[in-house]
Amino acid sequence: MSVLIVGSTALDSIKTPKAENPRLLGGSASHAALAASFFSPVRLVGVVGQDFPKRYLQLYKRRRIDLQALQILPGKTFHWSGEYEANMNRRRTLLTELGVFETFTPTLPNSHQKSPFVLLANIAPLLQHHVLNQMQRPKFVVADTMDLWLNIALPELLKLLKRLDAFVLNDSEAHQLTTEENVFAALKKIHKLGPRYVIIKKGSHGSILSGPRGFFLCPAYPLHQVVDPTGAGDSFVGGMMGYLATARGSIEDNLRRAMIYGSVVASFCCEGFGLQRTSRITRGQIGHRVKELERLARF
Amino acid sequence: MSVLIVGSTALDSIKTPKAENPRLLGGSASHAALAASFFSPVRLVGVVGQDFPKRYLQLYKRRRIDLQALQILPGKTFHWSGEYEANMNRRRTLLTELGVFETFTPTLPNSHQKSPFVLLANIAPLLQHHVLNQMQRPKFVVADTMDLWLNIALPELLKLLKRLDAFVLNDSEAHQLTTEENVFAALKKIHKLGPRYVIIKKGSHGSILSGPRGFFLCPAYPLHQVVDPTGAGDSFVGGMMGYLATARGSIEDNLRRAMIYGSVVASFCCEGFGLQRTSRITRGQIGHRVKELERLARF
Repeated sequence: MSVLIVGSTALDSIKTPKAENPRLLGGSASHAALAASFFSPVRLVGVVGQDFPKRYLQLYKRRRIDLQALQILPGKTFHWSGEYEANMNRRRTLLTELGVFETFTPTLPNSHQKSPFVLLANIAPLLQHHVLNQMQRPKFVVADTMDLWLNIALPELLKLLKRLDAFVLNDSEAHQLTTEENVFAALKKIHKLGPRYVIIKKGSHGSILSGPRGFFLCPAYPLHQVVDPTGAGDSFVGGMMGYLATARGSIEDNLRRAMIYGSVVASFCCEGFGLQRTSRITRGQIGHRVKELERLARF
Repeated sequence: MSVLIVGSTALDSIKTPKAENPRLLGGSASHAALAASFFSPVRLVGVVGQDFPKRYLQLYKRRRIDLQALQILPGKTFHWSGEYEANMNRRRTLLTELGVFETFTPTLPNSHQKSPFVLLANIAPLLQHHVLNQMQRPKFVVADTMDLWLNIALPELLKLLKRLDAFVLNDSEAHQLTTEENVFAALKKIHKLGPRYVIIKKGSHGSILSGPRGFFLCPAYPLHQVVDPTGAGDSFVGGMMGYLATARGSIEDNLRRAMIYGSVVASFCCEGFGLQRTSRITRGQIGHRVKELERLARF
């Protein structure tokens, strides 16, 4: 089954202590779409400007991502620039140029409105609502977010939470949303805001699923070197949704394994700048790391 | 088989945002010994002053801990006082009174020198050496440490590393020892310092084993509330050694499961001040949480 993914499609200029890379393909939807494309057909919803490099469009196409709902508008592509500290756990935004994103209104073709799996990747909650409003009885709706929306669009985000099957956020956002120091206490509070499933991402420490069948402690694939963690969270949720849309059986039955697959795609994402590594891997390499994770977690 | 445990035997005065508890039973050896005692016979090596409350001696005895090598000397018991921040991840030492610990020289009776499992719990590296010098061909020697010894006794600690089967430390200590930001890169460097097995503790994020068979990603048992994390790391390594000393088969085969048991005992430790919770649990309760962890980690 296909996955519809809305989010940002951006150019990322990324600085780490070791290197600097300007105008990489980035954005939550790009990362999530590439990750999902290893498992399922993907429909990308987004906007780019006329400066958007052709090679990036070709990259999407090589991964067979449906670009029918990718608008190419006069103006500039959303541009984000950020810098990481030595331990890669902290980053600061150097620059944000919204460009064509400022007036983005996603409009879905009929075919897209029937996509069974919907990933509202990190983007303004109003836009997430706007896409969800156009969907016709989706099977499974997941949203991701970021601290910015907790700060400037909390009411819209809270409304969104009541419309989701699953909500994905990272541990510091969970703390910000609930004021709970303890992640399991925070999970309890987030369920009360709406979603049946809540997933908290903890970076290199893995992630936690909370749902009707209790918790799942999902490990992160061990990496000896992180080149650039930008988009790892988007890759995680994208890989997860791609796997879910393809797996036989109930969502409930497949969610744990889907997270493992997401975790593995995220590990590849961290091994290169932007999408440089993710765009070069194969389904076989993903499967290999999943098997490795099985061995690493067994007791 | 029995486990010999040397470390601090102390009175801990602990302050958290919610409560204050003076002169609890504490110290690395107390926590580790109680944890190990659920699985194996334990021989405690330590020193206390004449002010040491009788009820704490009775507590050790109730857990059938061999106190033959616990010296009771004129003077005061080692007293540590610390305060935790709201998120329980940071603590600061308010006071350290060494008391009888200042001149502690552990001397082992003959029977003790033949203990097959040796846990050099957190204590000055010179004392860890001193105990190890008295051991007769132990089967498995594990040492824990703390940032203090990295700061003031690094040469002795480095010498100790060459005499160990396994070295246990937490993630910030691993970073301090190796200057590596990445925990897997740090593990590689620590192996080069001697130990065949290295275990890095990450608190609520679990722990990582690195050894001849590769990594094991050990989850932490999910806790909704942490009352007092003091001694959790000691409980982890104590529980692990206790389980190892009892389990049939090779150490290599049992180490992962031993860490899971250690992780579970550590979770109980966090649920009460000092040893208040650990001293009241049963082997059955530990087994129950191990089964739960199996369910939580399965995919």
